[in-house]
Amino acid sequence: MSFSTFSLKQDGAVLRVTLSNPPVNLMNLQMTEELFQLSGRLFVDQEIKVVIIDSADPDFFIAHFDVEDLVKSASDPSKASKYPDINALQSLALSWQALPQVTIAKVAGRCRGAGLEFILGLSMRFAREDTKFCAPEASGGFLACGGGTTRVALAAGPARALEFLLSARDFSGVEAERYGLINRSLPASELDAYVDDLAQRIANRSVEVVAMHRDVFKQAYSPMVEPLFAAFAAENEGLRKAMAGKEFAEGIEAILALKQERDYELDLPATIARFPRSQQ
Amino acid sequence: MSFSTFSLKQDGAVLRVTLSNPPVNLMNLQMTEELFQLSGRLFVDQEIKVVIIDSADPDFFIAHFDVEDLVKSASDPSKASKYPDINALQSLALSWQALPQVTIAKVAGRCRGAGLEFILGLSMRFAREDTKFCAPEASGGFLACGGGTTRVALAAGPARALEFLLSARDFSGVEAERYGLINRSLPASELDAYVDDLAQRIANRSVEVVAMHRDVFKQAYSPMVEPLFAAFAAENEGLRKAMAGKEFAEGIEAILALKQERDYELDLPATIARFPRSQQ
Amino acid sequence: MSFSTFSLKQDGAVLRVTLSNPPVNLMNLQMTEELFQLSGRLFVDQEIKVVIIDSADPDFFIAHFDVEDLVKSASDPSKASKYPDINALQSLALSWQALPQVTIAKVAGRCRGAGLEFILGLSMRFAREDTKFCAPEASGGFLACGGGTTRVALAAGPARALEFLLSARDFSGVEAERYGLINRSLPASELDAYVDDLAQRIANRSVEVVAMHRDVFKQAYSPMVEPLFAAFAAENEGLRKAMAGKEFAEGIEAILALKQERDYELDLPATIARFPRSQQ
Repeated sequence: MSFSTFSLKQDGAVLRVTLSNPPVNLMNLQMTEELFQLSGRLFVDQEIKVVIIDSADPDFFIAHFDVEDLVKSASDPSKASKYPDINALQSLALSWQALPQVTIAKVAGRCRGAGLEFILGLSMRFAREDTKFCAPEASGGFLACGGGTTRVALAAGPARALEFLLSARDFSGVEAERYGLINRSLPASELDAYVDDLAQRIANRSVEVVAMHRDVFKQAYSPMVEPLFAAFAAENEGLRKAMAGKEFAEGIEAILALKQERDYELDLPATIARFPRSQQ
Repeated sequence: MSFSTFSLKQDGAVLRVTLSNPPVNLMNLQMTEELFQLSGRLFVDQEIKVVIIDSADPDFFIAHFDVEDLVKSASDPSKASKYPDINALQSLALSWQALPQVTIAKVAGRCRGAGLEFILGLSMRFAREDTKFCAPEASGGFLACGGGTTRVALAAGPARALEFLLSARDFSGVEAERYGLINRSLPASELDAYVDDLAQRIANRSVEVVAMHRDVFKQAYSPMVEPLFAAFAAENEGLRKAMAGKEFAEGIEAILALKQERDYELDLPATIARFPRSQQ
Repeated sequence: MSFSTFSLKQDGAVLRVTLSNPPVNLMNLQMTEELFQLSGRLFVDQEIKVVIIDSADPDFFIAHFDVEDLVKSASDPSKASKYPDINALQSLALSWQALPQVTIAKVAGRCRGAGLEFILGLSMRFAREDTKFCAPEASGGFLACGGGTTRVALAAGPARALEFLLSARDFSGVEAERYGLINRSLPASELDAYVDDLAQRIANRSVEVVAMHRDVFKQAYSPMVEPLFAAFAAENEGLRKAMAGKEFAEGIEAILALKQERDYELDLPATIARFPRSQQ
């Protein structure tokens, strides 16, 4: 199995997935499909115990979902989710969340939109202090609807989640730790060693030991399962409303006009703030 | 509509509510009624998207509920809540919690008792690092029963909440952030700019976008609704027990004797600690 | 009633329990039984309002459960819990959790395994910044099954809990606070004064006031009771699986060979890392 949007490197029981989809590591349909394929392979892999996901581009972990592909797939019935209340990105994060392996995001650069939503479904998240986390969706007339609105709410609590999501600004790794979105932020010089040490420790545990911890967690958090799916359904309802409105269409049009180029993506919140808008 | 306990200033889609009820910004029956009236007006206001609540007195955001009015209303059947398990302050916070606007407390000085309970019902809370947050009720023989015991428990977790409530001491803004009671604390020189920038960002979102975020949050937190009301009922049960006891009556008498004067209010925990007490 | 594994000192309404079970403060069957007995006495004590638990050994709060006693009790049917889904250590923590008093752990030195599980059932936890908190179980082929896996998950959230439990490394007091496992960490010079001041404040509250706060918390957290017991059952299921495997037996054998001596216990994670292991 070969992948075009990331490279793999196995080191004993640890698999490193390095995202690489130049120029700005957009999560596009290709990357989505490949991440689904990889999760399918991991489900039946008996050797790999830990998966570390990082990026080959120091400036972009994942820029966000490719808006061109969003437009394409929205108009292509074959790309629609088979389940009306679970869309493809929600499903991708759920599929990774259900893996037997411990999955770890190691984040630097920009991690916005679908990138943030994806890593919130992984087991753990670590980031450089100067990472830029952002949910830009609200500033584009819709909401993080790959599970992100729900997962940010549950991780950060309602007050901090609402601030994070509605402000649509970049939050540093330090702020993301304070708001509970990641395990911890670390200085650039310490991040690799910290994650490597942790991965190695977990790789030393047997599959059974990891599984018995997960079983306890499942019971402890069982009251959150139904609300998670109900909230995912509300994300989809929000998206349907947004797609019927003018604000969303204008945002998509403006970002397509800029061709998602690197210069515009570096400070995406500022780029979006400059979009012309009709009166709301 | 004109108000005597706060002033209003509208700036585009942002409404600033500046509490002003000298000499120490007590939340009295007048302020309670006016905040209810304002929430009624906001429910049907299509223009205002963000409400910022601050205080005209740099030393007092809200001192606490006016004990003279508490005594008055306790003996006046017309001031009783129509619903035995929801009292007036719980209802006030619920009414603000249900507003379509994003409501933001910007806190400096003392924010104690009913003041803290009120802002815990708002969407978000920011404070100067040297703010003094306090729930003095336990030191007066009762409990925060305007929703505060419940909301502190849910925001801070049981261990930190019990420490905060039973210690009845002043917690700084920095401590309140560490314990999850507020979004964040900021240096005095940064608070205004931070809240203004956030308010402006949210004012740029459409009403629909704010509403779809709220809808997702409602689903994600739906398991907490019944416990919230059950816990409010337990607060009222606690208050009824307290009002039947000697400790509460002595605390009220002592604070009435001091006339809630500014000097005594500045360090209320120390003032209460000096009250004479019969053996418990 | 006299105890051999801790001393008691009553100071008004505050009881100090100082753990002392040389050489490394192992929690053994004797200490377990004595802590059960003390909780029985506290349940009917009308005078004591606050219990502070600390250690006479500055290097060890509690090392962990005595592995020799674990082996003994596992093979002695009379030591088995009467309830298949609640084991003795889970029951001990529940019994302390249910006390009418406010119970406070004041921690310095190593607090690992059963020691951590026990204090997670107390009302509050404070620690020196350089305390070493650790759940070593995963590195020994099993899981914290005295309620610890469940309580760490609920206190720290799933991502941080999984990191803490599977890494099986020492976490400092500062880290434990950041991950929500304790109320706060303090410099060595401030810990005693902080806890004493808090204990004195709570001792000034009436029993009724403490009880009414607890009643509200019970309602607010009522959705967590069933999952707590379901997760405890999952801990026991995990333990049963572990005891049937080779990894657990090897870990027990290795630690018994080292006789749980002080030198090996000081850096237990490093000691365990040196155990010879068959391929997993």
